[in-house]
Amino acid sequence: MFDLSKIDKLFVLMNENRLDGVVVGPSNTLEFMTGFNPVGCERFQALFITCDGRYFYICNLIYAEDMRRWFPDNAPFYVWNDGQGFHETLKAAVADFGLARKRIALGETIRAVDLMDMEGLFSCEFVNGVSLLEELRIIKTEADLDKMRAAARLADGVMEDLTRFIRPGMTEKEIKVKIEDLFMAKGADGLSFSPIVACGANNSRPHYREDAGIVAPKDVLLLDFGCRCQGFCSDISRTFFIGGISEEEKDIYTLAREAQAAAVAAAKEGVRCCDVDRAARDRIEQSGMGDYFLNRTGHGIGFDVHEAPYISGNNERCLERGMAFSIEPGICIPGRVGMRVEDIVAVNHRGETEVLNQFTRDILIIK
Amino acid sequence: MFDLSKIDKLFVLMNENRLDGVVVGPSNTLEFMTGFNPVGCERFQALFITCDGRYFYICNLIYAEDMRRWFPDNAPFYVWNDGQGFHETLKAAVADFGLARKRIALGETIRAVDLMDMEGLFSCEFVNGVSLLEELRIIKTEADLDKMRAAARLADGVMEDLTRFIRPGMTEKEIKVKIEDLFMAKGADGLSFSPIVACGANNSRPHYREDAGIVAPKDVLLLDFGCRCQGFCSDISRTFFIGGISEEEKDIYTLAREAQAAAVAAAKEGVRCCDVDRAARDRIEQSGMGDYFLNRTGHGIGFDVHEAPYISGNNERCLERGMAFSIEPGICIPGRVGMRVEDIVAVNHRGETEVLNQFTRDILIIK
Repeated sequence: MFDLSKIDKLFVLMNENRLDGVVVGPSNTLEFMTGFNPVGCERFQALFITCDGRYFYICNLIYAEDMRRWFPDNAPFYVWNDGQGFHETLKAAVADFGLARKRIALGETIRAVDLMDMEGLFSCEFVNGVSLLEELRIIKTEADLDKMRAAARLADGVMEDLTRFIRPGMTEKEIKVKIEDLFMAKGADGLSFSPIVACGANNSRPHYREDAGIVAPKDVLLLDFGCRCQGFCSDISRTFFIGGISEEEKDIYTLAREAQAAAVAAAKEGVRCCDVDRAARDRIEQSGMGDYFLNRTGHGIGFDVHEAPYISGNNERCLERGMAFSIEPGICIPGRVGMRVEDIVAVNHRGETEVLNQFTRDILIIK
Repeated sequence: MFDLSKIDKLFVLMNENRLDGVVVGPSNTLEFMTGFNPVGCERFQALFITCDGRYFYICNLIYAEDMRRWFPDNAPFYVWNDGQGFHETLKAAVADFGLARKRIALGETIRAVDLMDMEGLFSCEFVNGVSLLEELRIIKTEADLDKMRAAARLADGVMEDLTRFIRPGMTEKEIKVKIEDLFMAKGADGLSFSPIVACGANNSRPHYREDAGIVAPKDVLLLDFGCRCQGFCSDISRTFFIGGISEEEKDIYTLAREAQAAAVAAAKEGVRCCDVDRAARDRIEQSGMGDYFLNRTGHGIGFDVHEAPYISGNNERCLERGMAFSIEPGICIPGRVGMRVEDIVAVNHRGETEVLNQFTRDILIIK
């Protein structure tokens, strides 16, 4: 049920940013606010919130019954039908709530084509609301962190089980299916993203999404996965070595691991995100491998698997108590090999940097 | 591999619509054009095509290796990294291709927040490109229709198998899992959307997405699912009756079925989509149930499960040879019951209206 008290901070932020309205489409952000994340389609639907705490929901008639279940009985609903389209209904709603010609922030899932339609319907100043909406959940409570600790323990457990499951000859797909089965058996609510299982040279592509590769002796196997548990996400990466490890592989892995440790060590309360990124980047650049470090050092995590704070070179935000994020510098040599070690790290409410994942970072050879 | 000859029609349409460029993000539309549909994240990536047949792809460094596999060796790539963001890279690309201050159409998956960033970077006139891009595939060849016939046969077969599988006491989730298993066993490439399995009063919500309901005696069970097969989608809905049917249920079902038959009979080459919708709507309104017909009569289908032509009251487009679409008028009484019969219909290249699904539309009682 929609409870505005959960998003008190929104009205403070809207005031600070001189915003009259915020628009949130189906997304984890909407779920965070309302408890519900509808699976939409091309039909426009969104929650509109005004700076004085009023709101309305607009959706197609086919979603009206679903959405009314998640809002108080007297919540204002605007329902449009397929035969007319959403334009006139939205125009009336925006007029009723005094939002025409006002300054309105949009969430991450509103489509550009719908924005263009809105620009044609009423003269508002639209602005990017992503950072503002992420701000609502950038600080986790200790209770939230407990849920993230639990989600991290499940991910550690799945990684442990995989060391006994994975054998040469398996396909990446078999391992993906096993990851989901293991998470569900351990009580996860679902996956936080589709697992990445990349053997051979596939792991030089950081977000490799295929699954036909067959694990072969001497392969490097990269695993990157997580679950959702009581509303909070986990995310872990490890690199396994099948049947042995070469000297070159050992050097690359040691470098990835040292860069990860350097960033974790740098990630303290009050330190800027870009300086945490710099700590990992410095270590990799010193060894001449800087060109193969493709990604940011990490991303915030919580209700969403990617959210603020982003641990990247252009983010000057300082770490605060209650922030949680991944630390995952990687080395990717195109067409050859990719390795990374990823843990979720939080600055807890005692001001300590706490690594939520406990699974070993030692070289792990699968027999 | 990206093959511009597949999208010759695009350049004609761009010329007719005075467009200098088109931007397509990860989507089935991109897959239709390039063969590849990357699973993206919040990082901006898109294909830009100019009216003179040039193009470039822009993506984050972490996706560069994945994307280069799908483009010719000399294809222009613009790659940005997390530490800098995409703005400067995109600005340079747009300048290189002479697109600044030009008229550019956007595809359906470009985000509003990225459009707002683009508006700040270069003064272009952006327009909604959804209809234009759907136009590229609105006419199926006979070879395409053969693939759709095959996909429809798989859906018919799964429906047939379910009549023997479904029993009272099963959860909606068990039936959903079975649907996927059956499709995969029959050789489908995947599902065209997450199946809808709705028993009890859940079926009054046309896009019901939950799965905890338990099939009980006397229930009405609505099933709506499809697969993807050689790149083309199927989509079928049927309503089953568990252990028996009441007189009222029989009346509602008969009405849904007659409305569906009326729309199929109306769907002939040269007839406007809105008139096909009207045929179904007239039948339901005549019986006083018009308020319970919530959705449009149907949607185009092909490479995507929802695409042009939409069979709705506001679409004056005439049906042509090679168009394929669903016909699925429904009766939904909120909180009580929902029923529909859905088939995929094509106007084939002999000019005949062909119903691709063959599964029975008779009253079907599950013992």
